[in-house]
Amino acid sequence: MTAVQAQPRVALTDEAKAEFKALLGERFSTSGAVREHHGKDESYHTPFPPDGVAFATSTAEVSAIVKICAKHKLPIIPFGTGTSLEGGIAALHGGVCIDVSGMKEILRLSPEDLDVTVQAGVTRKQLNEYLRDTGLFFPIDPGADASLGGMASTRASGTNAVRYGTMRENVLGLTVVLPDGRVIKTGGRARKSAAGYDLTRLFVGSEGTLGIITEVTLRLYGIPEAVSAAVCPFKDIRGAVDTVIQTIQSGIPVARIELLDEVQMDAVNKYSKLDYAVAPTLFFEFHGTQRGVEEQAEMVAAIAAENGGTEFAWATRPEDRSKLWQARHDGYYAALALRPGAKGWPTDVCVPISRLADCILETKRDIAQSSLLAPLVGHVGDGNFHLVYVIDPDKPEEMAEAKRLNDRMVARALAMGGTCTGEHGIGYGKMEFLEQEAGEAFAVMGDLKRAFDPDNIMNPGKVVRV
Amino acid sequence: MTAVQAQPRVALTDEAKAEFKALLGERFSTSGAVREHHGKDESYHTPFPPDGVAFATSTAEVSAIVKICAKHKLPIIPFGTGTSLEGGIAALHGGVCIDVSGMKEILRLSPEDLDVTVQAGVTRKQLNEYLRDTGLFFPIDPGADASLGGMASTRASGTNAVRYGTMRENVLGLTVVLPDGRVIKTGGRARKSAAGYDLTRLFVGSEGTLGIITEVTLRLYGIPEAVSAAVCPFKDIRGAVDTVIQTIQSGIPVARIELLDEVQMDAVNKYSKLDYAVAPTLFFEFHGTQRGVEEQAEMVAAIAAENGGTEFAWATRPEDRSKLWQARHDGYYAALALRPGAKGWPTDVCVPISRLADCILETKRDIAQSSLLAPLVGHVGDGNFHLVYVIDPDKPEEMAEAKRLNDRMVARALAMGGTCTGEHGIGYGKMEFLEQEAGEAFAVMGDLKRAFDPDNIMNPGKVVRV
Repeated sequence: MTAVQAQPRVALTDEAKAEFKALLGERFSTSGAVREHHGKDESYHTPFPPDGVAFATSTAEVSAIVKICAKHKLPIIPFGTGTSLEGGIAALHGGVCIDVSGMKEILRLSPEDLDVTVQAGVTRKQLNEYLRDTGLFFPIDPGADASLGGMASTRASGTNAVRYGTMRENVLGLTVVLPDGRVIKTGGRARKSAAGYDLTRLFVGSEGTLGIITEVTLRLYGIPEAVSAAVCPFKDIRGAVDTVIQTIQSGIPVARIELLDEVQMDAVNKYSKLDYAVAPTLFFEFHGTQRGVEEQAEMVAAIAAENGGTEFAWATRPEDRSKLWQARHDGYYAALALRPGAKGWPTDVCVPISRLADCILETKRDIAQSSLLAPLVGHVGDGNFHLVYVIDPDKPEEMAEAKRLNDRMVARALAMGGTCTGEHGIGYGKMEFLEQEAGEAFAVMGDLKRAFDPDNIMNPGKVVRV
Repeated sequence: MTAVQAQPRVALTDEAKAEFKALLGERFSTSGAVREHHGKDESYHTPFPPDGVAFATSTAEVSAIVKICAKHKLPIIPFGTGTSLEGGIAALHGGVCIDVSGMKEILRLSPEDLDVTVQAGVTRKQLNEYLRDTGLFFPIDPGADASLGGMASTRASGTNAVRYGTMRENVLGLTVVLPDGRVIKTGGRARKSAAGYDLTRLFVGSEGTLGIITEVTLRLYGIPEAVSAAVCPFKDIRGAVDTVIQTIQSGIPVARIELLDEVQMDAVNKYSKLDYAVAPTLFFEFHGTQRGVEEQAEMVAAIAAENGGTEFAWATRPEDRSKLWQARHDGYYAALALRPGAKGWPTDVCVPISRLADCILETKRDIAQSSLLAPLVGHVGDGNFHLVYVIDPDKPEEMAEAKRLNDRMVARALAMGGTCTGEHGIGYGKMEFLEQEAGEAFAVMGDLKRAFDPDNIMNPGKVVRV
């Protein structure tokens, strides 16, 4: 955690308010409840409500809102579903939150090209619901039913990134409103291009600090002919992690390979009323042709058996698979339920796969020696894992202990050639870690921010220091 | 072609020369032959020799060279193997070429993490030779034995991008010397990261206009258990293209799927002394397990048969496959050999796959109605295809006709939602097309360039207008 104090604020003047009202009418709000709702994310971070919330319905409207903000030098905070985890939506300097959750149109679908263009407020579940009868799906799945604009902004990934990549690989193009209100389109619908600077990848993961994403063009995939899923407990966590490492090194194209430690399995059993073994466990999913899925499953089962995997429990019916993955996705809430009234401090790191076992084992040793409860889950096929410190944020000693553990885990990941966050992003919670990781390149990111946003109005106080 | 005139040059003073000599000794050259060699690429573009060539051996040395250039505001042109196609190495404003072809060290290999770090001058063939006994390979294959630094700079791809992606997807991190001589590291070895701006993807494809890439960290892949390749002629080109479209839409993970039109097949037969049918032809390669490869081949053969594919000729022995792909890669030289003494104007576009047949057919109709010879080849699985206008650049009417055809082809691709270049890059040859394609985003690219390189010394006159 970065101890964030109240920051200098730019006042929302009556003049600016009148301009917003003229543009949006009832869709501009300064009510306490609306502001509160838009100031807090799903984590332990202190809420920072904005001074006003503008509900946009189109790119043109976002542009008009941004122009008013630019004129008055008001900070702008983009908001999709509020499911970010590192304080990305906190209005540290006040200003206006632009809520795009009303931008829910699917603008264009080309089944024959496996791509789609959506407004930024469309969520991943809404998109997959829309695609239901087409034989296509959008795979990226960060757990929360996040907006696709928010997912692009934070370079989201999740359980099946090991096969399908992250938002970095699956965004083909964007419509972006720049800090001066100009609208640009980046990328396009061609599968590859050597035409100029890759502005798409620059905005993906920039967390609203360079512009607001209003439309997203995404890659889609054919629903595989065959899907099967399985759960396999292990004698110890090293055996589970070694199974993952060997699976990835063998080039087996698993669609999902998730680790839950024994603490998390206990939480999942209690929360989702299941009776899995309370042991380090891998959750698998295989996609392909019937023969391909069988072949992958055989190869992985052989690797698991050599590493102390005790038994594969298969889920081949869609409803059983849904139940299995729902239990996995509820992991965060299951962790919190271990201690009623507690809050979660979720964090993640990502390391080269050869260092994954060491990183996880050393981290678990640290936790065992501390007073905190901290279940571990991981998208381990990517070398990425998560902890949730289950804490009472009002107890300074617990916050200090969580900070100590977190600092040590990030330092460990960086020393192993890893990154301070595989998928949660920087927000304001991990800015110091980004500086440690990027070195001189952190200064270059600041230069870039200043070039795009000289008045520092786009989500100020996040990602980079200006 | 952009008609490029002599540009204002910054003189290489005796003072600057003395500084380069003090730093590099014999490795700084102003000899006519060396300068000529570094001023011309493999295309029809007019050569523009630099005023001096600096042969660098390390990142620190590149940084020192750049600092001298920055002090004297001398243009800098990075040079790998000189195999670019859009004038990327032309010293339009004079200045100093930094030749990194001597930076040939493999700095680190982690077989267990499937990654490697190399100096920028290592070529793709050198890397694969080095990997020979590890069971790993680096797939990206633009035809030429280009340097990996150059391939990163131009966002190269090639025949198997359809399965393995382009340099965009396969560069994990970079070491870059900025226009002021500072050295930064971008990205890292973690498979995914949500940590800050994606500087790696910003430098990949920036063609040396934002900084010089001196080291590249790359993804590697396990050599597949089974590989098979085949050649299949078609009754007509639409049948061949429809086979590609249906293969991609079915999600069959072909490793290569290349189209050669009947003109190109005739050239290949003559140049490589082969006796393939002179008909539109697809070259395939399949990678996977033994069973997987068989399954893919069966599915593709069924699709081809439905679309007028007459017969698959299989090449399962490695030496036969090498011969097949060598013939494909020699396509450019084969095209030139159709008209002794002629030069090639190679060009490429990329469109959404559903528009590929229309784009190719309309383009071939245009060529048929012109006086020029222009064989067509394509990485058609990506929607990407190439033409080579076989011309005499000294005949203005031929240049004008090639320009007319090229303008029409690019306009056609853009109208179909495609891009003006799938893999050759912008250089100075396609800057006007990039402007048409990117619209307002072209201005943003210029802003970015100015922020990184306020004195416009990094490969000036390429990609963006400043």
